[in-house]
Amino acid sequence: MKLYYSPGACSLAPHLIGLELGLALELVFASPRSKKLKDGSDFLAINPKGQVPVLELDDGERITEVAVILQVLADLSPGASLLAPHGERARLRALEWLSFTATELHKSYGPLFKPGIDPATQAYARSLLAGKLAWVEGEIARRDAAGQPWLLPQGFSVADAYLYNVLSWNPMAGVDDQPYPALRAYVARVQARPAVGAARRAEGLKD
Amino acid sequence: MKLYYSPGACSLAPHLIGLELGLALELVFASPRSKKLKDGSDFLAINPKGQVPVLELDDGERITEVAVILQVLADLSPGASLLAPHGERARLRALEWLSFTATELHKSYGPLFKPGIDPATQAYARSLLAGKLAWVEGEIARRDAAGQPWLLPQGFSVADAYLYNVLSWNPMAGVDDQPYPALRAYVARVQARPAVGAARRAEGLKD
Repeated sequence: MKLYYSPGACSLAPHLIGLELGLALELVFASPRSKKLKDGSDFLAINPKGQVPVLELDDGERITEVAVILQVLADLSPGASLLAPHGERARLRALEWLSFTATELHKSYGPLFKPGIDPATQAYARSLLAGKLAWVEGEIARRDAAGQPWLLPQGFSVADAYLYNVLSWNPMAGVDDQPYPALRAYVARVQARPAVGAARRAEGLKD
Repeated sequence: MKLYYSPGACSLAPHLIGLELGLALELVFASPRSKKLKDGSDFLAINPKGQVPVLELDDGERITEVAVILQVLADLSPGASLLAPHGERARLRALEWLSFTATELHKSYGPLFKPGIDPATQAYARSLLAGKLAWVEGEIARRDAAGQPWLLPQGFSVADAYLYNVLSWNPMAGVDDQPYPALRAYVARVQARPAVGAARRAEGLKD
Protein backbone atom coordinates (compact mmCIF):
# COMPACT_ATOMS: atom_id res chain seq x y z
CA MET A 1 0.00 0.00 0.00
CA LYS A 2 1.09 3.56 -0.72
CA LEU A 3 0.25 6.66 1.25
CA TYR A 4 0.62 9.96 -0.60
CA TYR A 5 1.55 12.52 2.01
CA SER A 6 2.95 15.96 2.66
CA PRO A 7 4.97 16.55 5.87
CA GLY A 8 2.74 17.59 8.76
CA ALA A 9 -0.43 17.75 6.64
CA CYS A 10 -3.50 15.71 7.57
CA SER A 11 -1.74 12.71 6.05
CA LEU A 12 0.09 12.47 9.39
CA ALA A 13 -2.96 10.78 10.96
CA PRO A 14 -3.12 7.83 8.53
CA HIS A 15 0.70 7.66 8.58
CA LEU A 16 0.81 7.25 12.35
CA ILE A 17 -2.11 4.81 12.30
CA GLY A 18 -0.18 2.74 9.75
CA LEU A 19 2.74 2.61 12.20
CA GLU A 20 0.44 1.84 15.16
CA LEU A 21 -0.86 -1.12 13.16
CA GLY A 22 2.51 -2.23 11.79
CA LEU A 23 1.24 -1.90 8.22
CA ALA A 24 3.72 -1.70 5.35
CA LEU A 25 2.83 1.75 4.01
CA GLU A 26 5.11 3.10 1.30
CA LEU A 27 5.21 6.88 1.75
CA VAL A 28 5.09 8.98 -1.41
CA PHE A 29 5.71 12.72 -1.11
CA ALA A 30 3.26 14.99 -2.93
CA SER A 31 3.79 18.75 -2.93
CA PRO A 32 0.65 20.60 -1.82
CA ARG A 33 1.75 23.72 -3.76
CA SER A 34 3.13 22.42 -7.06
CA LYS A 35 0.86 19.33 -7.13
CA LYS A 36 3.87 17.30 -8.24
CA LEU A 37 5.52 14.16 -6.91
CA LYS A 38 9.29 14.10 -6.28
CA ASP A 39 9.91 12.63 -9.73
CA GLY A 40 8.06 15.59 -11.25
CA SER A 41 4.99 13.59 -12.21
CA ASP A 42 1.51 15.02 -11.81
CA PHE A 43 -0.22 14.47 -8.44
CA LEU A 44 -3.52 15.58 -9.99
CA ALA A 45 -3.40 12.41 -12.07
CA ILE A 46 -3.34 10.50 -8.75
CA ASN A 47 -5.97 12.64 -7.02
CA PRO A 48 -7.81 15.17 -9.18
CA LYS A 49 -8.85 16.92 -5.96
CA GLY A 50 -5.15 17.71 -5.41
CA GLN A 51 -5.14 16.87 -1.74
CA VAL A 52 -3.25 14.47 0.49
CA PRO A 53 -3.71 11.91 1.92
CA VAL A 54 -4.40 9.34 -0.76
CA LEU A 55 -4.24 5.66 0.12
CA GLU A 56 -3.38 3.39 -2.80
CA LEU A 57 -4.35 -0.20 -2.17
CA ASP A 58 -2.24 -3.05 -3.51
CA ASP A 59 -4.73 -3.59 -6.35
CA GLY A 60 -4.19 0.03 -7.41
CA GLU A 61 -7.53 1.39 -6.15
CA ARG A 62 -7.15 4.79 -4.54
CA ILE A 63 -9.03 6.07 -1.51
CA THR A 64 -9.21 9.79 -0.73
CA GLU A 65 -10.48 11.82 2.28
CA VAL A 66 -8.59 11.42 5.55
CA ALA A 67 -11.63 10.32 7.58
CA VAL A 68 -12.34 7.52 5.09
CA ILE A 69 -8.71 6.40 4.84
CA LEU A 70 -8.52 6.13 8.63
CA GLN A 71 -11.52 3.80 8.63
CA VAL A 72 -10.04 1.65 5.87
CA LEU A 73 -6.70 1.30 7.69
CA ALA A 74 -8.29 0.50 11.06
CA ASP A 75 -10.61 -2.07 9.49
CA LEU A 76 -7.55 -3.90 8.08
CA SER A 77 -6.57 -4.78 11.67
CA PRO A 78 -9.78 -5.11 13.66
CA GLY A 79 -7.93 -6.82 16.51
CA ALA A 80 -5.95 -3.65 17.18
CA SER A 81 -9.17 -1.90 18.23
CA LEU A 82 -8.33 1.48 16.71
CA LEU A 83 -11.97 1.61 15.53
CA ALA A 84 -14.88 -0.45 16.79
CA PRO A 85 -16.49 -2.89 14.34
CA HIS A 86 -19.29 -1.79 12.04
CA GLY A 87 -22.63 -1.99 13.81
CA GLU A 88 -21.32 -1.00 17.24
CA ARG A 89 -22.28 2.31 18.83
CA ALA A 90 -18.63 2.96 19.71
CA ARG A 91 -17.88 3.14 15.98
CA LEU A 92 -20.52 5.84 15.56
CA ARG A 93 -18.90 7.85 18.36
CA ALA A 94 -15.55 7.61 16.57
CA LEU A 95 -17.15 8.63 13.27
CA GLU A 96 -18.78 11.63 14.96
CA TRP A 97 -15.36 12.78 16.16
CA LEU A 98 -13.82 12.26 12.74
CA SER A 99 -16.59 14.34 11.18
CA PHE A 100 -16.40 17.08 13.80
CA THR A 101 -12.61 17.28 13.53
CA ALA A 102 -12.80 17.50 9.73
CA THR A 103 -15.55 20.08 9.49
CA GLU A 104 -15.29 22.26 12.60
CA LEU A 105 -11.56 22.14 13.34
CA HIS A 106 -9.54 21.16 10.27
CA LYS A 107 -11.32 23.48 7.85
CA SER A 108 -10.93 26.47 10.18
CA TYR A 109 -7.13 26.11 10.09
CA GLY A 110 -7.10 26.53 6.30
CA PRO A 111 -7.07 30.35 6.20
CA LEU A 112 -4.36 30.47 8.89
CA PHE A 113 -1.93 28.79 6.49
CA LYS A 114 -2.71 30.94 3.45
CA PRO A 115 0.04 33.51 2.86
CA GLY A 116 -1.21 37.02 2.17
CA ILE A 117 -4.77 36.32 3.24
CA ASP A 118 -6.89 39.29 4.35
CA PRO A 119 -6.50 39.94 8.12
CA ALA A 120 -10.30 40.05 8.60
CA THR A 121 -10.59 36.58 7.09
CA GLN A 122 -7.84 35.29 9.36
CA ALA A 123 -9.53 36.88 12.36
CA TYR A 124 -12.82 35.25 11.39
CA ALA A 125 -11.16 31.82 11.13
CA ARG A 126 -9.37 32.36 14.44
CA SER A 127 -12.59 33.28 16.21
CA LEU A 128 -14.48 30.28 14.76
CA LEU A 129 -11.62 28.02 15.78
CA ALA A 130 -11.37 29.47 19.30
CA GLY A 131 -15.02 28.64 19.96
CA LYS A 132 -14.59 25.06 18.77
CA LEU A 133 -11.28 24.55 20.60
CA ALA A 134 -12.90 25.77 23.81
CA TRP A 135 -15.59 23.13 23.41
CA VAL A 136 -13.03 20.38 22.75
CA GLU A 137 -10.99 21.61 25.74
CA GLY A 138 -14.04 21.00 27.93
CA GLU A 139 -14.54 17.54 26.45
CA ILE A 140 -10.93 16.53 27.10
CA ALA A 141 -10.93 18.07 30.58
CA ARG A 142 -14.07 16.07 31.42
CA ARG A 143 -12.34 12.88 30.28
CA ASP A 144 -9.21 13.77 32.27
CA ALA A 145 -11.34 14.15 35.39
CA ALA A 146 -12.79 10.69 34.74
CA GLY A 147 -9.34 9.15 34.23
CA GLN A 148 -9.99 8.60 30.52
CA PRO A 149 -6.93 9.54 28.45
CA TRP A 150 -8.47 9.25 24.97
CA LEU A 151 -11.63 10.44 23.23
CA LEU A 152 -13.38 7.09 23.53
CA PRO A 153 -13.56 4.96 26.68
CA GLN A 154 -12.45 1.95 24.60
CA GLY A 155 -8.96 3.39 24.17
CA PHE A 156 -6.76 5.19 21.64
CA SER A 157 -8.49 5.31 18.26
CA VAL A 158 -8.35 6.82 14.79
CA ALA A 159 -10.39 9.72 16.23
CA ASP A 160 -7.46 10.60 18.50
CA ALA A 161 -5.03 10.34 15.57
CA TYR A 162 -6.97 12.93 13.57
CA LEU A 163 -7.73 15.26 16.49
CA TYR A 164 -4.05 15.17 17.46
CA ASN A 165 -3.05 15.83 13.85
CA VAL A 166 -5.00 19.09 13.62
CA LEU A 167 -4.15 20.27 17.15
CA SER A 168 -0.47 19.76 16.34
CA TRP A 169 -0.82 22.64 13.86
CA ASN A 170 -1.40 25.20 16.64
CA PRO A 171 2.21 26.47 16.88
CA MET A 172 2.61 26.78 13.09
CA ALA A 173 -0.82 28.39 12.74
CA GLY A 174 -0.06 30.90 15.48
CA VAL A 175 -2.92 29.61 17.63
CA ASP A 176 -2.25 30.51 21.25
CA ASP A 177 -2.87 27.32 23.21
CA GLN A 178 -2.59 28.91 26.66
CA PRO A 179 -6.39 28.80 27.12
CA TYR A 180 -6.37 25.06 26.44
CA PRO A 181 -4.26 23.27 29.07
CA ALA A 182 -6.14 19.98 28.69
CA LEU A 183 -5.54 20.04 24.92
CA ARG A 184 -1.84 20.78 25.44
CA ALA A 185 -1.50 17.78 27.75
CA TYR A 186 -3.54 15.65 25.33
CA VAL A 187 -1.28 16.55 22.40
CA ALA A 188 1.80 15.66 24.48
CA ARG A 189 0.15 12.36 25.49
CA VAL A 190 -0.51 11.38 21.87
CA GLN A 191 2.95 12.51 20.81
CA ALA A 192 4.54 10.28 23.47
CA ARG A 193 3.23 7.18 21.66
CA PRO A 194 6.16 5.51 19.89
CA ALA A 195 4.29 5.24 16.58
CA VAL A 196 3.48 8.95 16.65
CA GLY A 197 7.08 9.96 17.33
CA ALA A 198 8.25 7.63 14.56
CA ALA A 199 5.74 9.10 12.09
CA ARG A 200 6.83 12.64 12.96
CA ARG A 201 10.51 11.80 12.55
CA ALA A 202 9.84 10.06 9.21
CA GLU A 203 8.13 13.26 8.00
CA GLY A 204 11.01 15.43 9.25
CA LEU A 205 8.85 17.15 11.88
CA LYS A 206 10.16 18.49 15.17
CA ASP A 207 9.59 16.39 18.29
CA MET B 1 -36.95 8.11 16.18
CA LYS B 2 -36.66 11.89 16.35
CA LEU B 3 -34.81 14.15 13.98
CA TYR B 4 -33.94 17.59 15.34
CA TYR B 5 -33.95 19.92 12.35
CA SER B 6 -34.03 23.50 11.20
CA PRO B 7 -35.78 24.30 7.89
CA GLY B 8 -33.41 24.06 4.93
CA ALA B 9 -30.36 23.37 7.08
CA CYS B 10 -28.24 20.26 6.54
CA SER B 11 -30.91 18.32 8.44
CA LEU B 12 -32.80 18.29 5.11
CA ALA B 13 -30.60 15.42 3.88
CA PRO B 14 -31.46 12.98 6.71
CA HIS B 15 -35.08 14.19 6.58
CA LEU B 16 -35.43 13.30 2.90
CA ILE B 17 -33.57 10.01 3.38
CA GLY B 18 -36.05 9.16 6.15
CA LEU B 19 -38.88 9.74 3.67
CA GLU B 20 -37.09 7.78 0.92
CA LEU B 21 -36.89 4.87 3.36
CA GLY B 22 -40.40 5.27 4.79
CA LEU B 23 -38.99 5.63 8.30
CA ALA B 24 -41.16 7.11 11.04
CA LEU B 25 -39.05 10.16 11.89
CA GLU B 26 -40.61 12.62 14.33
CA LEU B 27 -39.37 16.07 13.32
CA VAL B 28 -38.43 18.41 16.17
CA PHE B 29 -37.67 22.04 15.31
CA ALA B 30 -34.53 23.53 16.86
CA SER B 31 -33.66 27.17 16.30
CA PRO B 32 -30.11 27.61 15.03
CA ARG B 33 -29.98 31.15 16.44
CA SER B 34 -31.64 30.92 19.87
CA LYS B 35 -30.62 27.26 20.45
CA LYS B 36 -34.13 26.63 21.76
CA LEU B 37 -36.82 24.14 20.84
CA LYS B 38 -40.37 25.34 20.13
CA ASP B 39 -41.38 24.70 23.75
CA GLY B 40 -38.56 27.00 24.88
CA SER B 41 -36.38 24.18 26.18
CA ASP B 42 -32.65 24.19 25.66
CA PHE B 43 -31.33 22.57 22.47
CA LEU B 44 -27.80 22.65 23.92
CA ALA B 45 -29.01 20.05 26.43
CA ILE B 46 -29.82 17.85 23.43
CA ASN B 47 -26.64 18.62 21.47
CA PRO B 48 -23.97 20.61 23.31
CA LYS B 49 -22.45 21.39 19.90
CA GLY B 50 -25.63 23.38 19.15
CA GLN B 51 -26.06 22.07 15.63
CA VAL B 52 -28.74 20.23 13.71
CA PRO B 53 -29.25 17.51 12.67
CA VAL B 54 -29.47 15.26 15.72
CA LEU B 55 -30.95 11.79 15.37
CA GLU B 56 -32.49 10.43 18.56
CA LEU B 57 -32.89 6.67 18.46
CA ASP B 58 -35.84 4.99 20.15
CA ASP B 59 -33.64 4.00 23.10
CA GLY B 60 -32.81 7.69 23.61
CA GLU B 61 -29.25 7.58 22.26
CA ARG B 62 -28.42 10.61 20.17
CA ILE B 63 -26.27 10.68 17.04
CA THR B 64 -24.80 13.94 15.74
CA GLU B 65 -22.99 14.92 12.51
CA VAL B 66 -24.98 14.76 9.29
CA ALA B 67 -22.59 12.37 7.52
CA VAL B 68 -22.87 9.88 10.39
CA ILE B 69 -26.66 10.19 10.71
CA LEU B 70 -27.03 9.47 6.98
CA GLN B 71 -25.06 6.24 7.41
CA VAL B 72 -27.14 5.19 10.41
CA LEU B 73 -30.42 5.80 8.56
CA ALA B 74 -29.32 4.01 5.38
CA ASP B 75 -28.03 1.04 7.37
CA LEU B 76 -31.51 0.64 8.94
CA SER B 77 -32.84 -0.34 5.49
CA PRO B 78 -30.01 -2.09 3.65
CA GLY B 79 -32.43 -3.41 1.03
CA ALA B 80 -33.15 0.14 -0.14
CA SER B 81 -29.53 0.44 -1.33
CA LEU B 82 -29.07 4.08 -0.33
CA LEU B 83 -25.61 3.07 0.91
CA ALA B 84 -23.67 -0.07 0.03
CA PRO B 85 -22.97 -2.54 2.84
CA HIS B 86 -19.91 -2.20 5.05
CA GLY B 87 -16.90 -3.84 3.40
CA GLU B 88 -17.86 -2.93 -0.18
CA ARG B 89 -15.82 -0.45 -2.19
CA ALA B 90 -19.02 1.33 -3.25
CA ARG B 91 -19.55 2.30 0.39
CA LEU B 92 -16.11 3.91 0.49
CA ARG B 93 -16.98 5.95 -2.61
CA ALA B 94 -20.14 7.18 -0.88
CA LEU B 95 -18.19 8.01 2.29
CA GLU B 96 -15.65 9.95 0.21
CA TRP B 97 -18.46 12.07 -1.23
CA LEU B 98 -19.99 12.64 2.21
CA SER B 99 -16.61 13.77 3.52
CA PHE B 100 -15.87 16.01 0.52
CA THR B 101 -19.34 17.58 0.67
CA ALA B 102 -18.98 18.26 4.39
CA THR B 103 -15.49 19.69 4.34
CA GLU B 104 -15.03 21.35 0.95
CA LEU B 105 -18.56 22.47 0.13
CA HIS B 106 -20.72 22.73 3.25
CA LYS B 107 -18.18 24.58 5.37
CA SER B 108 -17.53 27.15 2.63
CA TYR B 109 -21.19 28.18 2.67
CA GLY B 110 -20.96 29.12 6.36
CA PRO B 111 -19.62 32.68 5.91
CA LEU B 112 -22.19 33.38 3.17
CA PHE B 113 -24.99 33.02 5.71
CA LYS B 114 -23.42 35.16 8.44
CA PRO B 115 -25.04 38.58 8.59
CA GLY B 116 -22.62 41.48 8.84
CA ILE B 117 -19.56 39.44 7.98
CA ASP B 118 -16.57 41.24 6.50
CA PRO B 119 -16.80 41.45 2.65
CA ALA B 120 -13.23 40.14 2.27
CA THR B 121 -14.15 37.04 4.27
CA GLN B 122 -17.25 36.50 2.12
CA ALA B 123 -15.19 36.93 -1.02
CA TYR B 124 -12.65 34.40 0.25
CA ALA B 125 -15.42 31.87 0.94
CA ARG B 126 -16.98 32.52 -2.47
CA SER B 127 -13.70 31.98 -4.26
CA LEU B 128 -12.97 28.74 -2.35
CA LEU B 129 -16.49 27.53 -3.11
CA ALA B 130 -16.30 28.46 -6.81
CA GLY B 131 -13.19 26.30 -7.24
CA LYS B 132 -14.85 23.33 -5.59
CA LEU B 133 -18.17 23.76 -7.41
CA ALA B 134 -16.31 23.87 -10.72
CA TRP B 135 -14.73 20.52 -9.87
CA VAL B 136 -18.09 18.99 -8.90
CA GLU B 137 -19.64 20.43 -12.08
CA GLY B 138 -17.05 18.47 -14.07
CA GLU B 139 -17.79 15.30 -12.10
CA ILE B 140 -21.54 15.56 -12.69
CA ALA B 141 -21.08 16.49 -16.38
CA ARG B 142 -18.89 13.41 -16.84
CA ARG B 143 -21.62 11.24 -15.29
CA ASP B 144 -24.28 12.90 -17.47
CA ALA B 145 -22.23 12.05 -20.55
CA ALA B 146 -22.09 8.43 -19.38
CA GLY B 147 -25.84 8.32 -18.74
CA GLN B 148 -25.35 8.10 -14.96
CA PRO B 149 -27.82 10.35 -13.13
CA TRP B 150 -26.38 10.02 -9.62
CA LEU B 151 -22.97 10.24 -7.97
CA LEU B 152 -22.53 6.47 -7.76
CA PRO B 153 -23.22 4.00 -10.58
CA GLN B 154 -25.28 1.92 -8.12
CA GLY B 155 -28.02 4.56 -7.99
CA PHE B 156 -29.34 7.36 -5.79
CA SER B 157 -27.59 7.34 -2.41
CA VAL B 158 -27.09 9.29 0.79
CA ALA B 159 -24.18 11.01 -1.00
CA ASP B 160 -26.68 12.56 -3.44
CA ALA B 161 -28.94 13.61 -0.57
CA TYR B 162 -26.15 15.57 1.10
CA LEU B 163 -24.69 17.05 -2.10
CA TYR B 164 -28.19 18.15 -3.16
CA ASN B 165 -28.78 19.62 0.30
CA VAL B 166 -25.80 21.96 0.13
CA LEU B 167 -26.26 22.85 -3.56
CA SER B 168 -29.85 23.82 -2.78
CA TRP B 169 -28.42 26.70 -0.74
CA ASN B 170 -27.05 28.48 -3.83
CA PRO B 171 -29.96 30.91 -4.34
CA MET B 172 -30.13 31.87 -0.65
CA ALA B 173 -26.35 32.17 -0.42
CA GLY B 174 -26.22 34.38 -3.51
CA VAL B 175 -24.09 31.86 -5.40
CA ASP B 176 -24.50 32.41 -9.13
CA ASP B 177 -25.11 28.96 -10.60
CA GLN B 178 -24.90 30.04 -14.26
CA PRO B 179 -21.39 28.52 -14.58
CA TYR B 180 -22.75 25.17 -13.37
CA PRO B 181 -25.40 23.89 -15.80
CA ALA B 182 -24.82 20.23 -14.89
CA LEU B 183 -25.26 21.04 -11.20
CA ARG B 184 -28.47 22.98 -11.90
CA ALA B 185 -29.90 20.00 -13.78
CA TYR B 186 -28.71 17.65 -11.02
CA VAL B 187 -30.42 19.70 -8.30
CA ALA B 188 -33.65 19.69 -10.33
CA ARG B 189 -33.33 15.93 -10.80
CA VAL B 190 -32.95 15.29 -7.07
CA GLN B 191 -35.75 17.73 -6.27
CA ALA B 192 -38.11 15.85 -8.63
CA ARG B 193 -37.94 12.78 -6.36
CA PRO B 194 -41.22 12.56 -4.44
CA ALA B 195 -39.49 12.11 -1.08
CA VAL B 196 -37.41 15.23 -1.65
CA GLY B 197 -40.43 17.35 -2.56
CA ALA B 198 -42.27 16.00 0.49
CA ALA B 199 -39.36 16.81 2.78
CA ARG B 200 -39.13 20.35 1.39
CA ARG B 201 -42.85 20.95 1.82
CA ALA B 202 -42.76 19.58 5.38
CA GLU B 203 -39.99 22.09 6.17
CA GLY B 204 -41.93 24.95 4.54
CA LEU B 205 -39.39 25.40 1.74
CA LYS B 206 -40.21 26.63 -1.74
CA ASP B 207 -40.49 24.05 -4.52
